[in-house]
Amino acid sequence: MKEDIEQIEALNEAFYHAFESGDLDKMSEVWIEDTDDRVAMCVHPGWAMLAGRSSVLRSWALFMANTTYIQFVLSDVRTMLSGDVAVVTCTEDVLVPAGTDELGFAAGVVVATNTFIRTESGWRLWLHHGSPVMQDEDEDEGEGGHEQ
Amino acid sequence: MKEDIEQIEALNEAFYHAFESGDLDKMSEVWIEDTDDRVAMCVHPGWAMLAGRSSVLRSWALFMANTTYIQFVLSDVRTMLSGDVAVVTCTEDVLVPAGTDELGFAAGVVVATNTFIRTESGWRLWLHHGSPVMQDEDEDEGEGGHEQ
Repeated sequence: MKEDIEQIEALNEAFYHAFESGDLDKMSEVWIEDTDDRVAMCVHPGWAMLAGRSSVLRSWALFMANTTYIQFVLSDVRTMLSGDVAVVTCTEDVLVPAGTDELGFAAGVVVATNTFIRTESGWRLWLHHGSPVMQDEDEDEGEGGHEQ
Repeated sequence: MKEDIEQIEALNEAFYHAFESGDLDKMSEVWIEDTDDRVAMCVHPGWAMLAGRSSVLRSWALFMANTTYIQFVLSDVRTMLSGDVAVVTCTEDVLVPAGTDELGFAAGVVVATNTFIRTESGWRLWLHHGSPVMQDEDEDEGEGGHEQ
């Protein structure tokens, strides 16, 4: 189990590193192949759900083609394992140069749910759901900032 | 497996119905109990991640206390099962009366990932991740609307 968690967390890092380095081959290796009952699913911040490996990888190719520089600093990384499925949640502090945000990818804070599944070829990314975290003007506590 | 999927989809409906009817008891029944290696996780649109059953249920109690009327129309419901974990993705068309949006809950379109887990007491909701879908001004295709 400890070994699984190490592999999953390394794959989670590889996912972000593939985007940072604009390496579509590495990104392709991270994601599952579609099967009859389980397909790759991806939500970019502000986007609808993309379903299916080809749609998902096409979206990453688009982002990579339109991103000159991006860096992720991950925090609050939490890995939970149940059988052949693992859920990794994390906060992404996303750094991009000002003015290159052509595809609407929000600079700032994103919260992500990354769900991995064990395949015959090892752990692979099944679902990525990233969403923007709205910052309060007066406070920046990072959790439940809209509570009154 | 078919029976599992029916139970999971019924629980997914029960989750939204609990919020619509402002029934915190029903909402509490939907969610898992925390264990040492697995806790309830929830992202409301625009929020950071809430971790732990008490934080999650407190957030729902807050929403319910501040919501006079809310209705969800679900579409694109997709259920994928792997062992004792199921992922349901769906699009939520959220209807709220204008002017009652005091907790920042966006009216409009939300995309959700709901992850369920089989427990000794049956299927329970483990993780909910809801995020706002930004609508293009010129088109409303619902999927990948920011692609150029």
